[in-house]
Amino acid sequence: MPTEAAPARAAKILVSPDDLASMVAGIFAARAVRPADAAAVADALVWANLRGIDSHGVSRVPRYIELFDKGESVPDAVPTVDRPRAAVAIVDAHAAPGPIAMNRAVAEAIAGARDCGIGWASVRGTVHTGAIGYYTSQAAEAGMAAVGVVAGMPNMAYHGARGAAVATSPLSVAVPAGRRGLVLLDMATAVLALGRIAQLKAAGAELPPGAAVTADGEPTTDPALAKVPLPAAGAKGAGLSLVFELLASGLAASPIVPGYHAGTPEGRRHRQNGFVLAIDVTAFLPLGEFTATVADTVDAIKALPPAAGVAEVLVPGERGQRSELGRRASGIPLGPRVWRELTGLAASLDVPVPGPAAG
Amino acid sequence: MPTEAAPARAAKILVSPDDLASMVAGIFAARAVRPADAAAVADALVWANLRGIDSHGVSRVPRYIELFDKGESVPDAVPTVDRPRAAVAIVDAHAAPGPIAMNRAVAEAIAGARDCGIGWASVRGTVHTGAIGYYTSQAAEAGMAAVGVVAGMPNMAYHGARGAAVATSPLSVAVPAGRRGLVLLDMATAVLALGRIAQLKAAGAELPPGAAVTADGEPTTDPALAKVPLPAAGAKGAGLSLVFELLASGLAASPIVPGYHAGTPEGRRHRQNGFVLAIDVTAFLPLGEFTATVADTVDAIKALPPAAGVAEVLVPGERGQRSELGRRASGIPLGPRVWRELTGLAASLDVPVPGPAAG
Repeated sequence: MPTEAAPARAAKILVSPDDLASMVAGIFAARAVRPADAAAVADALVWANLRGIDSHGVSRVPRYIELFDKGESVPDAVPTVDRPRAAVAIVDAHAAPGPIAMNRAVAEAIAGARDCGIGWASVRGTVHTGAIGYYTSQAAEAGMAAVGVVAGMPNMAYHGARGAAVATSPLSVAVPAGRRGLVLLDMATAVLALGRIAQLKAAGAELPPGAAVTADGEPTTDPALAKVPLPAAGAKGAGLSLVFELLASGLAASPIVPGYHAGTPEGRRHRQNGFVLAIDVTAFLPLGEFTATVADTVDAIKALPPAAGVAEVLVPGERGQRSELGRRASGIPLGPRVWRELTGLAASLDVPVPGPAAG
Repeated sequence: MPTEAAPARAAKILVSPDDLASMVAGIFAARAVRPADAAAVADALVWANLRGIDSHGVSRVPRYIELFDKGESVPDAVPTVDRPRAAVAIVDAHAAPGPIAMNRAVAEAIAGARDCGIGWASVRGTVHTGAIGYYTSQAAEAGMAAVGVVAGMPNMAYHGARGAAVATSPLSVAVPAGRRGLVLLDMATAVLALGRIAQLKAAGAELPPGAAVTADGEPTTDPALAKVPLPAAGAKGAGLSLVFELLASGLAASPIVPGYHAGTPEGRRHRQNGFVLAIDVTAFLPLGEFTATVADTVDAIKALPPAAGVAEVLVPGERGQRSELGRRASGIPLGPRVWRELTGLAASLDVPVPGPAAG
């Protein structure tokens, strides 16, 4: 959902995606990330902005720098890969930034799928992976259907319990759709992701009921009081988050939930695990036949009569695709605080700061 | 959730699980299902009753018979298996009843996982698969983590659209949990599964708000007026159902949604597709180490402070496990209508009818 709502619009700075990526890559490179990796992290963050997921975009750059400063992320870490079985790879991130580890996982999952029909890559011990649709959509560009999951530090309530208990662990499913482009589901297991709650707070807007509770566990629609997001659909979102922790962290031998609740410093140290499953469509049927079916299915959904008050029926990823088209053409709108932080960081590291977009 | 709520309890008939399975297997065998397959279908249905999922249990036997009578299911069909790649199997059900095809898929997914670390089996063209936790939990008994999905005929609204558009396609994830038994998530993508709405109607209870709409698309809490269930968490449940259709039906080359909305007789013919993904835990780490982590995670969740008004924090599958223990000991409670239908069918086919449970 684009953030440039009318009231805040005047204050936004429009930046060309390429210029923004160059500046962000420059910042990372100046902080000891290898040049190719710096470009990769920048591309993942700018992609989130292009898709309208600003909460997972370049506004997170200062957070990475903070993780470097604390030693919780290692800027020049090189992930290592173990392939214990033909269709399984385990990528140990050694605390490399999320996109570096997750990109490697995508490549390994695709390699496994080309070999065996499906391929799985687990990621152990990375930090902030960003918008996971970025990774599954890469696999879709290679003609694969893909599933991606990330598990992180508990920040969401578990159904029926008080306080932060499990993570808002996102799930993404990407399916190549031929003439319809891509079906790209990318959802948190919370009613609203934390970044979205922060956006509503910044915009002075109320939360929908049932999205969050206060520090005392009381329901609230005031984003300033909202401390703990609630799981989507109650027991379902909580159950999904729990099994994602077991599959992402448990299989990677890097459990998060037990140590977090034990409260030890090691247990509370920020980290994320994840996995990517790639499915080689051509193992099942010709790719063109599959994508035609996917496009026909999308056509059928788009042709449904809209419910009262709804202008258009949307499929997963459609809003993001429109955002990407618009922002590639006219630039990425950044809030003044984000722009100030980024350009301040760039200046302090002798990285050139771009001017506003031409569009 | 057990159905033997106090008001209706007096009317229930308690039947031993073994006796019930024998009678149901006898009914299927008398209707041309091969003896081993008849026992397998009965076991899947009785398992659902044991777990407390009565909507997916033996109450469905008359529906299978109706599908046989209409030619929509073939009682003695023998599924065929194609293995195009080492980790991928495609099971063509040839309209065999769901449990026959899905059991074969579980075996094939496990075989692929033993070989490659993970294994996928698609199921094409079956009918009524029952409670899909049955299949994933079989894989968990073999030391696998497993994911199962079924896609069927549209019976749920799509977010933002009117009328039945997509299926309440369930997802199950099973993870072996060592001393904690099994974590078993088994959820519809609807707020409430159709069977649950029927149960509330039978019990004269109201639906929770936001669970269903009338034939005209108006929100309702009256189960008698509820015609179309709503997706869980709005766009999230709808998006999950859509991608499950693409992965289950699309990869099996047996799309349901486009033909259904085209409205052709072939497009409206009842059928289901599915897939099972098995993950060989030992490809990642020793099984005992993994299940200890899973059990530690369950312990951490169980130890969370309950929210106001909540007696106990539950993990996925815990309620079903308790139901199973209780019902194995004291028998499965069946409503008088279900019992009358089953025993009537049995008598008409010369199948012996058991007496009530000793418990």
